[in-house]
Amino acid sequence: MTNKLIIGDKSLDNRLFTGTGKFSNQEVIPKTIKATDSQVVTMALRRVNFDTPQKNVINYIPDECTLLPNTSGARNAEEAVRIAKIAQAAGCGNWIKIEVISDNKYLLPDNQETIKATKMLAKEGFVVLPYVSPDLMVAKKLEEAGAAAVMPLGAPIGSNRGLKTKELIRILIDEINLPIIVDAGIGKPSQAAEAMEMGADAVLVNTAIATADDPVAMGQAFNQAVKAGRQAYLAGTGRTNDKAQASSPLTGFLGD
Amino acid sequence: MTNKLIIGDKSLDNRLFTGTGKFSNQEVIPKTIKATDSQVVTMALRRVNFDTPQKNVINYIPDECTLLPNTSGARNAEEAVRIAKIAQAAGCGNWIKIEVISDNKYLLPDNQETIKATKMLAKEGFVVLPYVSPDLMVAKKLEEAGAAAVMPLGAPIGSNRGLKTKELIRILIDEINLPIIVDAGIGKPSQAAEAMEMGADAVLVNTAIATADDPVAMGQAFNQAVKAGRQAYLAGTGRTNDKAQASSPLTGFLGD
Amino acid sequence: MTNKLIIGDKSLDNRLFTGTGKFSNQEVIPKTIKATDSQVVTMALRRVNFDTPQKNVINYIPDECTLLPNTSGARNAEEAVRIAKIAQAAGCGNWIKIEVISDNKYLLPDNQETIKATKMLAKEGFVVLPYVSPDLMVAKKLEEAGAAAVMPLGAPIGSNRGLKTKELIRILIDEINLPIIVDAGIGKPSQAAEAMEMGADAVLVNTAIATADDPVAMGQAFNQAVKAGRQAYLAGTGRTNDKAQASSPLTGFLGD
Amino acid sequence: MTNKLIIGDKSLDNRLFTGTGKFSNQEVIPKTIKATDSQVVTMALRRVNFDTPQKNVINYIPDECTLLPNTSGARNAEEAVRIAKIAQAAGCGNWIKIEVISDNKYLLPDNQETIKATKMLAKEGFVVLPYVSPDLMVAKKLEEAGAAAVMPLGAPIGSNRGLKTKELIRILIDEINLPIIVDAGIGKPSQAAEAMEMGADAVLVNTAIATADDPVAMGQAFNQAVKAGRQAYLAGTGRTNDKAQASSPLTGFLGD
Repeated sequence: MTNKLIIGDKSLDNRLFTGTGKFSNQEVIPKTIKATDSQVVTMALRRVNFDTPQKNVINYIPDECTLLPNTSGARNAEEAVRIAKIAQAAGCGNWIKIEVISDNKYLLPDNQETIKATKMLAKEGFVVLPYVSPDLMVAKKLEEAGAAAVMPLGAPIGSNRGLKTKELIRILIDEINLPIIVDAGIGKPSQAAEAMEMGADAVLVNTAIATADDPVAMGQAFNQAVKAGRQAYLAGTGRTNDKAQASSPLTGFLGD
Repeated sequence: MTNKLIIGDKSLDNRLFTGTGKFSNQEVIPKTIKATDSQVVTMALRRVNFDTPQKNVINYIPDECTLLPNTSGARNAEEAVRIAKIAQAAGCGNWIKIEVISDNKYLLPDNQETIKATKMLAKEGFVVLPYVSPDLMVAKKLEEAGAAAVMPLGAPIGSNRGLKTKELIRILIDEINLPIIVDAGIGKPSQAAEAMEMGADAVLVNTAIATADDPVAMGQAFNQAVKAGRQAYLAGTGRTNDKAQASSPLTGFLGD
Repeated sequence: MTNKLIIGDKSLDNRLFTGTGKFSNQEVIPKTIKATDSQVVTMALRRVNFDTPQKNVINYIPDECTLLPNTSGARNAEEAVRIAKIAQAAGCGNWIKIEVISDNKYLLPDNQETIKATKMLAKEGFVVLPYVSPDLMVAKKLEEAGAAAVMPLGAPIGSNRGLKTKELIRILIDEINLPIIVDAGIGKPSQAAEAMEMGADAVLVNTAIATADDPVAMGQAFNQAVKAGRQAYLAGTGRTNDKAQASSPLTGFLGD
Repeated sequence: MTNKLIIGDKSLDNRLFTGTGKFSNQEVIPKTIKATDSQVVTMALRRVNFDTPQKNVINYIPDECTLLPNTSGARNAEEAVRIAKIAQAAGCGNWIKIEVISDNKYLLPDNQETIKATKMLAKEGFVVLPYVSPDLMVAKKLEEAGAAAVMPLGAPIGSNRGLKTKELIRILIDEINLPIIVDAGIGKPSQAAEAMEMGADAVLVNTAIATADDPVAMGQAFNQAVKAGRQAYLAGTGRTNDKAQASSPLTGFLGD
């Protein structure tokens, strides 16, 4: 078994995707991404500064990374499609993370508009990674719509609350024949590892890295945790037991 | 800040201790320990085979590791002390993990006898690492008794159930001026990472590695997870939020 | 503040809805419903036996209860509408619980088809209670579509796994101006109480009561738990604290 | 099977014990205790005001309740014994809840001193209910020492954090032939219900009731929740399932 993650036309070794929003200054981005070892990096098109290009977040993303622009700011499918095309025209490539959000408090995605946008963009040759509220039927429709992966949320964006939707994500992993990438909510490396142990194909982390006291060190921590979780998944974690199971011989040592 | 873990006379770089019980065959032990990068390795004295020394578990533990023989089989303080002395006489050094267990179903330690054994052995120059049910008052008494670290259980031995005593362990981390090493119950790398993120100083893992389908790969996974958790602890994990926190700009992209 | 639950044209005192599937024999249904004190009882139309009417589940539901037939068996909106109309024609009244399910393994609802069916049936004067995967955007659309309540699942039907989608349900409670009735997954009275403490307006329980060793006693237990949870919600639960807060004076008793 | 709880010489119908510390004013105590239906009520001897007896907390406890004075303020076994005797001499009867606490931050009990005090007081004819950190070996020693029940903490006193030591309490329920009364930490009725569903024999609640916005209503909520949990335990809760289990017939309704 190879351990590559295939998405669209890419074959990836690293399963930690990193987001570039939320960094207090852009200078720290390149070093942090290096520390994460990420091959896929997300960015909001809005952060691309067309007037003073030297401040563009793109300039801080290492060249060897695959850009995954998101459609942040889109409130419906049409706006998401429009943003995707602007991104492509701006040279960001044909990968697109669809975010359609009209709720400003919890930033929860609109699954239905997301399906629509996925269908439209997949038809036009985009590699589409939709961000969704975890829902089996929606994931099945995304599969039909030509999505390249499904990105269910673990908890609201930026909440650092962890895998609060674990039960629903587990079902997606079980039933959907696309990579499942847990996106949003992951606040600690242990939570990233847990997602991977469950069988998620990758995780996307932004806030937890960008807002750590030391983003570079935290990026490295997440990189290791994702690798650890993936490796544990492949190595086959043991059973849990209600009772204890002696790991050392218990009795009779001195009585022999 | 240095990132060394000081226990007794040793300064350790690696914070994953590995146990050698539960392996289905001893041949896999050396490779697994290498994969864990462990510098401290536990073993039951009982497994030391005095008649056919070539089968001794000791022979499978890399020379550069510090041996941490345990007193498995002891039902009271006196037996633990006797086993510790046999271990020392057998050339296992002066580190000793005290296990006093008279309950064969859950294998829960007898804290009171453990305090007694700790006091006796510390006085004789042993580096004493007592395995206990997490309890603040007991940990304080172990500190007074001269323990070199405190090893609270996360869940019953071999249960792979994880950090079920998290609240009590957190209090030990907060209040006790000795290394806190979570021992027993850790079933997955994510749980080891979580213990380290909470501020535990190290973890001891046996069953979860030894009974994995691929112990070597699992040992490596735990090694990475422990490093990730430690690094996250040092890097300062972010706050959790009840609401979402936008990581990308949310509105107005197309309305500008 | 009155403590009535208003749904459609009814004002309810009891917040436990009971389901009638899963009972091993129908004879136990009337006594169980009495024990639950439920005023709303669900039934699958399929269980209505048109040929031997004396075996109809309807005959076992106390007359004073509001019937809530469900559209179990429907795989899309049109089928759900058709079943709703058959139920109405069969004298089951104008309340309808929409279940549109095409996944036979996890029995997860199709939110999109459910929104469609809700819109159609609400227009025709039905009191529509849709069963959904918890999703804020979907709940908002159900509100617009004229739903009388929203019934998010806590875990897959019949799994007895509890409030696994707690975080998402909490958001619905916060944001949606309709009664939120937790449906599916609740396996124990404590879980029903927890849903009510969170601010859910009611819960629907079937499997946990019907498959208990003693369904009548379990029905009574759920009734009490739902009342307890509601009462606690109204009475204002206290804050949690990281440290202890003395409830008795701590020191100095003998030192005075 | 009778459903009485036998402790010492008493046979109790109600399994909710209520504490009287933490109330903002004593006037609310009698009505709250009535609402809880408690037959056993705890009080700190310190709150007994020997100078102005009309302000004594005792005067606010209904006559029919069994008083359970606690030894709050004791820092070791001897002090606990002395307080117990003062309580008895003051007419509080021969029930005593042992609290030996020397840690002012987390208010965690000293199990070892508690065992000692239990032994001394049981010998003198007291009905001794020791408050402990949950620990199987300690509970066994309390059994030998003549305790009438064991009161393990769910979380630190007053923290309202719930059943954080669930795994350890479950083992006590399994292994100890004395009533297990969960004391401290229970913050919501759902948590009290959960303890009872696990098989705890009773729970003691103070802070969660006394500091609720409406203590009387909250007392009633806890009473119902404890009854619900006990009833569910006796009624036999169902199994949990990984997959869904249809509670209504699923397919073919319209296809027949």
